[in-house]
Amino acid sequence: MRRIEINTRKREELIDITTEVRKIVRDSNVESGICYIYVPHTTAGVTINEHADPDVARDIESTLSKLIPPGRGYRHLEGNADSHIKATVVGPCVFVFVENGDLLLGTWQGIFFCEFDGPRRRRVYVKVVGDK
Amino acid sequence: MRRIEINTRKREELIDITTEVRKIVRDSNVESGICYIYVPHTTAGVTINEHADPDVARDIESTLSKLIPPGRGYRHLEGNADSHIKATVVGPCVFVFVENGDLLLGTWQGIFFCEFDGPRRRRVYVKVVGDK
Amino acid sequence: MRRIEINTRKREELIDITTEVRKIVRDSNVESGICYIYVPHTTAGVTINEHADPDVARDIESTLSKLIPPGRGYRHLEGNADSHIKATVVGPCVFVFVENGDLLLGTWQGIFFCEFDGPRRRRVYVKVVGDK
Repeated sequence: MRRIEINTRKREELIDITTEVRKIVRDSNVESGICYIYVPHTTAGVTINEHADPDVARDIESTLSKLIPPGRGYRHLEGNADSHIKATVVGPCVFVFVENGDLLLGTWQGIFFCEFDGPRRRRVYVKVVGDK
Repeated sequence: MRRIEINTRKREELIDITTEVRKIVRDSNVESGICYIYVPHTTAGVTINEHADPDVARDIESTLSKLIPPGRGYRHLEGNADSHIKATVVGPCVFVFVENGDLLLGTWQGIFFCEFDGPRRRRVYVKVVGDK
Repeated sequence: MRRIEINTRKREELIDITTEVRKIVRDSNVESGICYIYVPHTTAGVTINEHADPDVARDIESTLSKLIPPGRGYRHLEGNADSHIKATVVGPCVFVFVENGDLLLGTWQGIFFCEFDGPRRRRVYVKVVGDK
């Protein structure tokens, strides 16, 4: 298992980690298998979406915050109840197939760490498992 | 790894792909293991839900579109920002256990490809990994 | 594969199953690998979130019900269309890495069964796969 360390800079922010994950896959020397990506935080998540136009990530951030706004009206009193709920909607884990020693992403797909309660120091766990 | 090809016919549409995934599991000759399902698109996803009553899929389509409507108010200017956001809410990947050479789905569960920006030609990747 | 049986007591309820999943991991004698968790129901799901403050789970329940309320206005006529939609938003499956014979959860993370149409008798499937 390998770790990626991230310093986020805003409260809500999708950060493209495709390059870092791809490097771990290549270093693993796995030709064909599965790459598992896991976020060990409760106010962050991981998603796969378009990374050609950065406006897609901005729209995801703003739409989630419109649906699940920060502020009052929650029982959890640390001011980040909305961040926890967004983490559950987006999810803590994804997998991507590995073929020819590389991530088998679609043409427009990138992997994003989703910060919902930054800025913070964050980690992502990555594991690459080869076919038998 | 195997591929399923799908021609979607509407802008938003959940399409039951359980039969196609099941066929891949049976062809794999894996008795016990895990079936991984992955969608390589950024305006589509995959989910597992009831496939006995097709109205459940229709309610998922219409409720997601009510929460995340198409139209203006997004930064991404291709007219499908809502489709990208729905893809992140639903997610690009699921897994199902394999037992006795078949998918171990619950009684009411089916696997659905989720089109959010059709009609288009789409693909789903499926990998079946047997226990050691 | 192992099963966890749960009796839920409310219509909407997040139930912490970390202890049960951890026990299965320890019983598996897998030192390093992946723990897969799957919910075979269409009106329930599984998520990972903070389990130190139980108010976080309450906020997730109430916010999902505010966004996707029960009641009329759905095509599915069994009175639980909202439960099916919540199941798709949360998702039916998660994985957690296993290191040193234990779940590699983040400091605040717990695993929750998400009941959206209880009270019912429910099951969770758990599979632990060791590295080669």
